[in-house]
Amino acid sequence: MALKLEKVVQGITPVSMEWRQKARTYLDKLAIPRGSLGELLNLAEQLAAIRETLEPSVRHKAVVTMAGDHGVVAEGVSAFPPEVTPQMVANFVAGGAAINVLAEVAGARVYVVDMGVAADLTDLVAAGKILSYKVDYGTRNMAKGPAMSREQAVQALEAGIDVADKLIREGVELLATGDMGIGNTTPSSAILAAFSGLPAEEVTGRGTGITDEVLKNKARTIQRALEINRPDPNDPVDVLAKVGGFEIGGIAGVILGAAYHKIPVVVDGFISSAGALLAKKLAPASVDYMIAAHQSMEYGHRHMLRELGLQPLLNLNLRLGEGTGGALAMNIVESAAQVIGKMLTFEDAGVTPDAPRGE
Amino acid sequence: MALKLEKVVQGITPVSMEWRQKARTYLDKLAIPRGSLGELLNLAEQLAAIRETLEPSVRHKAVVTMAGDHGVVAEGVSAFPPEVTPQMVANFVAGGAAINVLAEVAGARVYVVDMGVAADLTDLVAAGKILSYKVDYGTRNMAKGPAMSREQAVQALEAGIDVADKLIREGVELLATGDMGIGNTTPSSAILAAFSGLPAEEVTGRGTGITDEVLKNKARTIQRALEINRPDPNDPVDVLAKVGGFEIGGIAGVILGAAYHKIPVVVDGFISSAGALLAKKLAPASVDYMIAAHQSMEYGHRHMLRELGLQPLLNLNLRLGEGTGGALAMNIVESAAQVIGKMLTFEDAGVTPDAPRGE
Repeated sequence: MALKLEKVVQGITPVSMEWRQKARTYLDKLAIPRGSLGELLNLAEQLAAIRETLEPSVRHKAVVTMAGDHGVVAEGVSAFPPEVTPQMVANFVAGGAAINVLAEVAGARVYVVDMGVAADLTDLVAAGKILSYKVDYGTRNMAKGPAMSREQAVQALEAGIDVADKLIREGVELLATGDMGIGNTTPSSAILAAFSGLPAEEVTGRGTGITDEVLKNKARTIQRALEINRPDPNDPVDVLAKVGGFEIGGIAGVILGAAYHKIPVVVDGFISSAGALLAKKLAPASVDYMIAAHQSMEYGHRHMLRELGLQPLLNLNLRLGEGTGGALAMNIVESAAQVIGKMLTFEDAGVTPDAPRGE
Repeated sequence: MALKLEKVVQGITPVSMEWRQKARTYLDKLAIPRGSLGELLNLAEQLAAIRETLEPSVRHKAVVTMAGDHGVVAEGVSAFPPEVTPQMVANFVAGGAAINVLAEVAGARVYVVDMGVAADLTDLVAAGKILSYKVDYGTRNMAKGPAMSREQAVQALEAGIDVADKLIREGVELLATGDMGIGNTTPSSAILAAFSGLPAEEVTGRGTGITDEVLKNKARTIQRALEINRPDPNDPVDVLAKVGGFEIGGIAGVILGAAYHKIPVVVDGFISSAGALLAKKLAPASVDYMIAAHQSMEYGHRHMLRELGLQPLLNLNLRLGEGTGGALAMNIVESAAQVIGKMLTFEDAGVTPDAPRGE
């Protein structure tokens, strides 16, 4: 029986302050100048607190790449045609995409989920190559009305929860989110604007690489979608339904599912952060389980990270999505887990930092 | 017969512009929005140009951690006593140090080299646990005269070249440098000051974590070492001899050896960058083979990177050394190699970015 959104949202609790303290006390004893491993120590503390152990394992890793299409591409907001969404899904299945090669380096499996691609992918589903939680064949055009119904929004969120739930039951210890969906920076920007109150121009970027003119049109389209739909920032499901996307809801669901099961989840770039923002608004404690992979080149991402209150691990000028930044960050996360789980303390190592200095 | 410094320096040539161009042309065809993998693409281009292939392999990785002691610790410039250098070498051998666990995640072997530890490490050498190229039992106090003789400086450089040469002949495809040596931010800062002309206060940082008072003393000590020794910035061997360290010379040698053999080398933090600066001054084309791992917390590192003309891959507030930042960056480097070596192009993947958009 699949987990219901309400149950998951209510079941998400902040990570243990006691374990945070325990981890920090232990990390301070490691045979290094105190604090000299910087962000790795903060990450190690977070992992220990999430897993409630000083030896957190993140060996079993999965990247969940959620795919969906967007009715709003009819407004001419993207540099790529929507046909590219199913073509890229096929590329993921063939193993030739960026997420495939980067996940391999990270030692992570990639799970591609059809959340709402506007093409028939039943062959790939039947062959066991992708998971199907298809809500519909693409969202409706949010510049003319809600992107989806409230029921579809809940369905997308619960689909993501279900994916996380299944993977975690199979032994996955570290999740990363990813996306594929031509046009999906547009709903992501709209979600950011809806929650933050920032003007459309301030949250809109070049996505896959649009011209100045298309950028202006994109910001106007987002503005129109917000004006027509009036998403309620106090009702995250309403925001998702009116100006969101199926894969963005799915990503939010994966994050909620991870937090519910007390599993760390690496949040990729701009689109994944829109999902993370939805998750945070639904269950504020879910941020305790999030790890921001990187600072994206997409213009609005800095605002997104500020809304989330997260510091990104990497800054490599990425703007691809798919979960690529998430996969790259996974090795940093594993490194942090090894630091707390396997390093020796000053005492264990027989290192005497405060030996007399010949006085 | 070991390689001589002069031969190596003369044998280092810039990477092939033709291969850079070939790589960029190929990378622009990958099935991603152009440029959307940011720094990974620059790195992939560099790797391809270094190795002169569109499928550069960096699977066989080694971190070389060079250890040495410093007479200048007698001036009270470090938070730790020099006994910690051999104790940490023992910790590396036991596998309990940060570099051990991070190299494991990176899939790299760690080679610890005694370049000049002020302790008898013959047992570890005899047991095959560390390599010995010991130049002496620590440098002399540079605040009172040259840290080493010119012959010792050349010996340290050639030792590093020899280590790189052997590892590369054994099949290593990616090197990273690391250091261990209580007090070694002091000579590193002095090297930076000698080459850049920057005042001592501007290049001096807190190292392992010294107080304000010790920091002032450290800057004064560096200033005194420069005044007494007057290192010639146009003669890198003179700079190394007068205000350097054995492990810093060894690191410079590893970098030169890598560049000579056209193998990429990841430069860790502040101390490794001092070695990289020596390498650059000896053979300017060697920078083509360098990859800056991270922006260290050590204050002067930003100047060091500017002098090198390198952009760091990571910024995780590290200030440990050992090669830890280098090991962390190795997975990013491997990711870049996979991007160019294994991803499909738009054409191969059957993705049509310029399909008609329904007009």
